[in-house]
Amino acid sequence: MPTALVRNGRVVTASESYEADLYVDGGRIALVGQGLSLPADTVLDASGCLVLPGGVDVHTHLDMPAGETRSADDFETGTRAAAFGGTTTIVDFATPEPGQSLLAAFETWMRKAEGKAAIDYGFHMALRGLGETTAAEMARLTRDEGVTSFKLYLAYPGVLQVDDATFFRALLGARECGALTLVHAENGGVIDVLVKRALARGETAPRYHALTRPPETEAEATARAIAMAALAGTPLHVVHLSCAAALAHVAAARERGLAVHAETCPHYLFLSTADYDRPGLDGARYVMSPPLRETADQDALWRGLAGGDLEVVATDHCPFTLADKARGRDDFSRIPNGAPGIETRMMLLWDGGVRSGRFDAQRFVELTATGPARLFGLWPRKGAIAVGSDADLVVWDPERETRLAAETLHMRVDYSPYEGRIVRGGPVAVLSRGEVVVDHGEWKGRPGRGQFLKRSHGATRPA
Amino acid sequence: MPTALVRNGRVVTASESYEADLYVDGGRIALVGQGLSLPADTVLDASGCLVLPGGVDVHTHLDMPAGETRSADDFETGTRAAAFGGTTTIVDFATPEPGQSLLAAFETWMRKAEGKAAIDYGFHMALRGLGETTAAEMARLTRDEGVTSFKLYLAYPGVLQVDDATFFRALLGARECGALTLVHAENGGVIDVLVKRALARGETAPRYHALTRPPETEAEATARAIAMAALAGTPLHVVHLSCAAALAHVAAARERGLAVHAETCPHYLFLSTADYDRPGLDGARYVMSPPLRETADQDALWRGLAGGDLEVVATDHCPFTLADKARGRDDFSRIPNGAPGIETRMMLLWDGGVRSGRFDAQRFVELTATGPARLFGLWPRKGAIAVGSDADLVVWDPERETRLAAETLHMRVDYSPYEGRIVRGGPVAVLSRGEVVVDHGEWKGRPGRGQFLKRSHGATRPA
Amino acid sequence: MPTALVRNGRVVTASESYEADLYVDGGRIALVGQGLSLPADTVLDASGCLVLPGGVDVHTHLDMPAGETRSADDFETGTRAAAFGGTTTIVDFATPEPGQSLLAAFETWMRKAEGKAAIDYGFHMALRGLGETTAAEMARLTRDEGVTSFKLYLAYPGVLQVDDATFFRALLGARECGALTLVHAENGGVIDVLVKRALARGETAPRYHALTRPPETEAEATARAIAMAALAGTPLHVVHLSCAAALAHVAAARERGLAVHAETCPHYLFLSTADYDRPGLDGARYVMSPPLRETADQDALWRGLAGGDLEVVATDHCPFTLADKARGRDDFSRIPNGAPGIETRMMLLWDGGVRSGRFDAQRFVELTATGPARLFGLWPRKGAIAVGSDADLVVWDPERETRLAAETLHMRVDYSPYEGRIVRGGPVAVLSRGEVVVDHGEWKGRPGRGQFLKRSHGATRPA
Amino acid sequence: MPTALVRNGRVVTASESYEADLYVDGGRIALVGQGLSLPADTVLDASGCLVLPGGVDVHTHLDMPAGETRSADDFETGTRAAAFGGTTTIVDFATPEPGQSLLAAFETWMRKAEGKAAIDYGFHMALRGLGETTAAEMARLTRDEGVTSFKLYLAYPGVLQVDDATFFRALLGARECGALTLVHAENGGVIDVLVKRALARGETAPRYHALTRPPETEAEATARAIAMAALAGTPLHVVHLSCAAALAHVAAARERGLAVHAETCPHYLFLSTADYDRPGLDGARYVMSPPLRETADQDALWRGLAGGDLEVVATDHCPFTLADKARGRDDFSRIPNGAPGIETRMMLLWDGGVRSGRFDAQRFVELTATGPARLFGLWPRKGAIAVGSDADLVVWDPERETRLAAETLHMRVDYSPYEGRIVRGGPVAVLSRGEVVVDHGEWKGRPGRGQFLKRSHGATRPA
Repeated sequence: MPTALVRNGRVVTASESYEADLYVDGGRIALVGQGLSLPADTVLDASGCLVLPGGVDVHTHLDMPAGETRSADDFETGTRAAAFGGTTTIVDFATPEPGQSLLAAFETWMRKAEGKAAIDYGFHMALRGLGETTAAEMARLTRDEGVTSFKLYLAYPGVLQVDDATFFRALLGARECGALTLVHAENGGVIDVLVKRALARGETAPRYHALTRPPETEAEATARAIAMAALAGTPLHVVHLSCAAALAHVAAARERGLAVHAETCPHYLFLSTADYDRPGLDGARYVMSPPLRETADQDALWRGLAGGDLEVVATDHCPFTLADKARGRDDFSRIPNGAPGIETRMMLLWDGGVRSGRFDAQRFVELTATGPARLFGLWPRKGAIAVGSDADLVVWDPERETRLAAETLHMRVDYSPYEGRIVRGGPVAVLSRGEVVVDHGEWKGRPGRGQFLKRSHGATRPA
Repeated sequence: MPTALVRNGRVVTASESYEADLYVDGGRIALVGQGLSLPADTVLDASGCLVLPGGVDVHTHLDMPAGETRSADDFETGTRAAAFGGTTTIVDFATPEPGQSLLAAFETWMRKAEGKAAIDYGFHMALRGLGETTAAEMARLTRDEGVTSFKLYLAYPGVLQVDDATFFRALLGARECGALTLVHAENGGVIDVLVKRALARGETAPRYHALTRPPETEAEATARAIAMAALAGTPLHVVHLSCAAALAHVAAARERGLAVHAETCPHYLFLSTADYDRPGLDGARYVMSPPLRETADQDALWRGLAGGDLEVVATDHCPFTLADKARGRDDFSRIPNGAPGIETRMMLLWDGGVRSGRFDAQRFVELTATGPARLFGLWPRKGAIAVGSDADLVVWDPERETRLAAETLHMRVDYSPYEGRIVRGGPVAVLSRGEVVVDHGEWKGRPGRGQFLKRSHGATRPA
Repeated sequence: MPTALVRNGRVVTASESYEADLYVDGGRIALVGQGLSLPADTVLDASGCLVLPGGVDVHTHLDMPAGETRSADDFETGTRAAAFGGTTTIVDFATPEPGQSLLAAFETWMRKAEGKAAIDYGFHMALRGLGETTAAEMARLTRDEGVTSFKLYLAYPGVLQVDDATFFRALLGARECGALTLVHAENGGVIDVLVKRALARGETAPRYHALTRPPETEAEATARAIAMAALAGTPLHVVHLSCAAALAHVAAARERGLAVHAETCPHYLFLSTADYDRPGLDGARYVMSPPLRETADQDALWRGLAGGDLEVVATDHCPFTLADKARGRDDFSRIPNGAPGIETRMMLLWDGGVRSGRFDAQRFVELTATGPARLFGLWPRKGAIAVGSDADLVVWDPERETRLAAETLHMRVDYSPYEGRIVRGGPVAVLSRGEVVVDHGEWKGRPGRGQFLKRSHGATRPA
Repeated sequence: MPTALVRNGRVVTASESYEADLYVDGGRIALVGQGLSLPADTVLDASGCLVLPGGVDVHTHLDMPAGETRSADDFETGTRAAAFGGTTTIVDFATPEPGQSLLAAFETWMRKAEGKAAIDYGFHMALRGLGETTAAEMARLTRDEGVTSFKLYLAYPGVLQVDDATFFRALLGARECGALTLVHAENGGVIDVLVKRALARGETAPRYHALTRPPETEAEATARAIAMAALAGTPLHVVHLSCAAALAHVAAARERGLAVHAETCPHYLFLSTADYDRPGLDGARYVMSPPLRETADQDALWRGLAGGDLEVVATDHCPFTLADKARGRDDFSRIPNGAPGIETRMMLLWDGGVRSGRFDAQRFVELTATGPARLFGLWPRKGAIAVGSDADLVVWDPERETRLAAETLHMRVDYSPYEGRIVRGGPVAVLSRGEVVVDHGEWKGRPGRGQFLKRSHGATRPA
């Protein structure tokens, strides 16, 4: 089995920071100490750098059908881009076709990843509704396939939205099999009325995307999902939380002792409604759901990340090309929802979080790796630098300057929402199970080397 | 025109209390002063008594179809019972049949009341959904017919429940025509799942009615309705609010300056879940929706009445005979929902509110007459003792003791939820537009003397 | 006894609005009706006008010593100005000299008013501390002299400030005699440190008055006073509440059912910190404590007035001449604290409250007359238009335009904080106990006609 | 330098859990790996056990004068008992005599510890007031002596209590030198009045200690301290928080992003007001300040520990013998305040926290070691198992059963508040800087081996 030695770095975990060398054997961390002088197949010098657990991105949409098009990255390009950004594990969403069984959807997504993924991956399962066999399928996925989390949508009527009765039954079903329920929390019914009214008034520009999905619709749905999860007595994870009003509901629930968790995404931290007013169709680049919010919301989210009520930063990576975005030229509701982000998550969060003094490097590790790994049943294999854990490591130069640009980033999409932004701090080298996959900007990985991860039950708060 | 003189009483309004005689001419209050010595067709001596504005009950269900049966009081018996309790105005609910137009439903209810009502009455209109002509009908009812309030249900799936999109569109429609939206706030979807699970487990007794409609389902729906009303920019009235958790949402909304109003009912103030545990089918007598709650909820409601966040006490009078209640002998979900209350409202509230020191007589008048009259566009014709107002008056003996019992009460139903309870304070005489309709327990009114009230836009908080 | 007739007006009380003539006999309202044709000594035509209860201003400082100077209005000029503004009752503060007994201070203030006051008046008593005889004096003042409210200061260390132990003992003492405790809620200790630091840095301009008394110091003291009153089990009235943060504490306390009341003043509704930046010493005109706040605070106060958590609008009238204000030319802490307002309260509140649609005319009456009269034991003699109440009446032209200016106002002070502001709505005639004291801008009253009011226990919320 | 090897244990840190051997050299952790086979002076087998960072107890009162007596443990007995309980670092409080300089007090306490302490120790400094040299002394202690935290009391008038101005100035002073301010948050003024009233009524039994220090007095003082710290722009640490109401203020402050931290103590988690009703003088054993609270408070504190708003569990160890406690036989206010706890903290918290499923072993480490070490500037030397950290280690048997009893515990006090309670989980061996000081219940340490710790600035939340 190949061995590796990462020398002279400062190891940072979610609770520690210390100078040490790491010796890797069989893809796992075998020895931690100073001045280790063991022979190794690979030796990396991390002088002047930090050594972090590889990032864990628990919200991606690779190779996902979306109406007449699909998300622009598949598992090959998407996972490679992830690795370039320091992320070594993703959890993607399998979504059944209407009428398709969960197990069939799981197989479909397994096939999408097979032979392509360059880093390790797992799956959540989306639920469009609850049929006769759904409960049994949920149990089987949880028990046998390591798919331990299920997502429902309170938005997108006629497509993915479920009604409250279905959502509540899904919560009860998840409780039965010990799975975690994820919610896309927006009130799709209200939004639908607002969208139709806007279009009827000729309000077709991208900025009406945000105006027809006001924060109150997200806050309401968040509160409703929490109320139902509390009634069902089962944990809840609120994905891509975007605004202060929704966060307030999460915080209140947690103070009452409820098992409620939440994630936000970098775009909600760095971008705002102002971006929708960019000229021409440029605003379409920022169309995702929930939409971008105000700077006061950004502040609240940063406080939530620092203070503990937001435990996960994920990307909701769902890129569409500018050509795809142009489908909504005359009607914002036809712009495919989503934006690229899988590669830039850690750089943005380091720059805005750690460098700006909002939180320390330990919290950064918690938010990008340890927290999501624990919540989604990947820890301690992932998200940790500890003897026995997978040697998913990032050698991180806290001072490296990067100018974000579509041209130099590795996602398969022809724009970046952060085009031109300069961030400090980024990965110099990335190891997946002890193998160097990125080395000073050079790709060393290969498609198909990524392994499917059967996840355990996540470590949620007591319900 | 006949005249009347009410002498020697203490007049109590929502803000005043003073000794004076009242002279009535043409059904209206003409003169207020001490020692009035005008000749009058009728002279009432109110010595030792208070003179209050006649009660305004804005939530009744007379002659209402309910599955295989109907509510036990029609407009004749119901309005007579109301008058016996000191209530001189009601606002009942017209509910279209599935597919029926609003205007047709209005006509139906007008016919139900015609020739029967012994006191004045108005109508709210219930909405089952929104068809193509609904908006126009709402506008016409509001403008031409004095039906200025519309009610929607977030409970009773498959029967009356509307989804969020419909509710939101109704709010926008009400805003358009300046009408007030009323909401029955319970999450019907969640409740439906809970009911089915309970029945599947063989939990069929009346107490499961309460256990399958937990306060969280009401609180959630209340919060959701408020959120949607805020988004629509239009006032909301929460009917029959029953629990502390829902009240907290109303209070928070009002503190934020929203135009949110709420009513509660006497049964939520005096009865509790303990009543469901009465032997045999006796618990069925207390089956209404929302169900009875805990004593801590009662305390919160009393505080809300005293402190201002609850502005209306109405009855939700919807009596069913014990034979009807027995339909649910083997299945609580088949018990017709509702209880009698139209006659006992003011006696109960005086005893529990004023006599217990929770609030003063002015607040009592506000809650039972002035507040509802203002909110529903009946003021100052109703709900006031003022020159020019209708002489709807109650001569109220604050010390009179009454033992509540089905046998002596006048509602057409064979039980009382308060059977045997002794209350102090009650009406000695009741005048409707200057005519004595109740005099020391004797009925002086007659069917058909009641007039339909075209209501104005209510005085809601600024939205 | 002289009689009067006010004809053709629209009477507005805290709960009613109706067209009627009022007949006054013996200083009291004797008869209310339409088309009254009784002979009367005085006949006033109120056509096109409202007839309101005379205003009740429960926070004034007339003839008050203040360091080397004193407030510019005495009981003659102050009460005359009050009447010109529609106010017919004041409650002023008697403040003992250090070491002086409460009874002696009461006598002092009785003498100040005697022969001078042109409208009726009562007194609160300020407490500098608690001596051996204080409890007995409080009991006697409450029982025998109609001084039923006591005020303590949590600000002004070394002058009026009491420590928490003293404040708590005073609350217990007030509870003992059924009196109401008033609190000036600012954290004087913290403010004192901030003031000294500012001065040490050379920050001497008026605007540092506001910067050294930040809203947090008021919010903290408000919360503390509420906590102590709750522990003592006795009602509390927070005077001159100025900011959203303090109001939030009051609102939360009331929602918990505590007997907490609060007033604000017109200057907090219409002026803001921006006024401190006026050129030269002009900012000194706005130096009062608490200081002016931000416009967001104004909004919160208006909502509180409309929604019920603020029940009283008083003036804290405490005028100082520009010469007096100039004492603080080089040191903001030497500017005498206070501003004129006794005359402009009702005009400002009508314009900003009723005309702006923030609340209706009934609420205006509640805030300016009925509410304060009830809370401070003057009702129903004052604050009501009802048979038997004092005929303190204002004939109010809702459309009359007034340009506020020191020159035309009647307070004995050479500036107005509202100089040049145009308000609509104002008194045409003012009656005190049936006597016309102001008639179309002409003074008809006389010094000394005002009577001392022995107040009852106020109608506070249940503690 | 001596070396040590801890083999076959499961290492638990605040974020990780893994099986590994630890090799210790020069008192520090040198190597972490599985199957380490290096020679070592000491070899410990941790099979079946966890290996935790040594506990850090940041709130102790050893050898402290208290009126006519002193706390029963000195630095020899106290630190030995600490070690027996798994605690390897304490931070004690140096308190100046009235008039004594801070530096002199520091010297006094250094002498108390010297030659006696068996584990490492640091000092906080208490402030009785602010003299002319205090700021300079604070700066010197922080910069030169590693005393980076200062404590003030809002309770104990006439003894330790400071007024708000002093507290605020101390906060500003602490901000100046980057120190952390600690607050004993009870409203001493109010309590003093309550105590005197109780005694005057003959209420002398121990339970009146709790009744005269109601939770509201703690909640109020907590809110006040937070408000002042926010105004001063400096972090605050609330020591020995005991009740839900105070915790709610801390939680709200943290949600607003304030740098507020809080600790609780085991007695507030396991004991309650019921203990004051024990027969005879037994209730005196539980007299400490704040007093014990209700079980609902316990629940809130456990939630706070699990959820993050409580970050530290410390002991407030301040034991008095039963003879000392008996001083208050006829007057609860003369019972010396305090109870033993330095030895039982970790056993109780493991049993009640981890075994009961309220939080996991990582959170236990965070609360007992890593959190306090970080907050008080001891990390990463203390509170961590990481290469380079002090080898302060506890070999912890998660299943070991201990019956708590004064006789077998090692604190120099003749009772235990937990007498007879059986807890599972406890230390098998304890290492301080690589030296075994406790081995299977046998004392291997020696007085004087403990070192004084110069602390850095703590890692507080951004202010």
